[in-house]
Amino acid sequence: LIEIIIVSHGQYAKVMLESAQLIAGEQDHICTFGLELGESVDQLRDEISNTIEKVQKNGEVLILTDMFSGSPFNVVVSLMQYHSFYHITGINLPILLEILLSRDTSSAEELCEEILEKAKDTVIDVNKYLEVMS
Amino acid sequence: LIEIIIVSHGQYAKVMLESAQLIAGEQDHICTFGLELGESVDQLRDEISNTIEKVQKNGEVLILTDMFSGSPFNVVVSLMQYHSFYHITGINLPILLEILLSRDTSSAEELCEEILEKAKDTVIDVNKYLEVMS
Repeated sequence: LIEIIIVSHGQYAKVMLESAQLIAGEQDHICTFGLELGESVDQLRDEISNTIEKVQKNGEVLILTDMFSGSPFNVVVSLMQYHSFYHITGINLPILLEILLSRDTSSAEELCEEILEKAKDTVIDVNKYLEVMS
Repeated sequence: LIEIIIVSHGQYAKVMLESAQLIAGEQDHICTFGLELGESVDQLRDEISNTIEKVQKNGEVLILTDMFSGSPFNVVVSLMQYHSFYHITGINLPILLEILLSRDTSSAEELCEEILEKAKDTVIDVNKYLEVMS
């Protein structure tokens, strides 16, 4: 089992998980954190740190962040010195679904490789795609 | 000016825009639609169709959907027969920000090309990235 933590600006992480659950059903062993405007970065770091310590007893930990750079990303990068976990940034809904579907059967290392390989096919210019198909 | 419409499962589109606005400030000429469990696909199609008709007077229209396949995507694809617009699926937060920053200075066609080119660099394995940097 791979424990998942999603960290973002605002409610993005929480709602991305909610939308994924509309498709894939309720999920366990996953939690989300969002940094609102004016909220304390130090408090967010402490909360994520505590969660990592708690969930890493269950298995490997994969943290997903919304985008390269920005406070949520920087908080998670700063925690990489103190905790051992995998970290992928720039996730979208199809990547999250892929992770949820594969995390029971892959190691975190395999899962990260698989995700990076598949990620480039998740963003599609639909006008061009339909032209090619017709 | 390029008019943007984001369509997703649940509140994902709405909240992705909110998180982007935490970073890039308030945005005009952009709106979002979300399909909740049990909601009518036909009503969603009508609402998006009406919005396209209204906003296309202002400029080119770019519709962003959360993922390839699924009802929100299929609704937008069905509208491509009746309306002329650009459609990119699988967006994430860095892509949305890139679109918001570039839509005043690019045509929609240029913007779509630019987005597809940059998209592959938005998903990053941070453990590997930091190894390479160190």
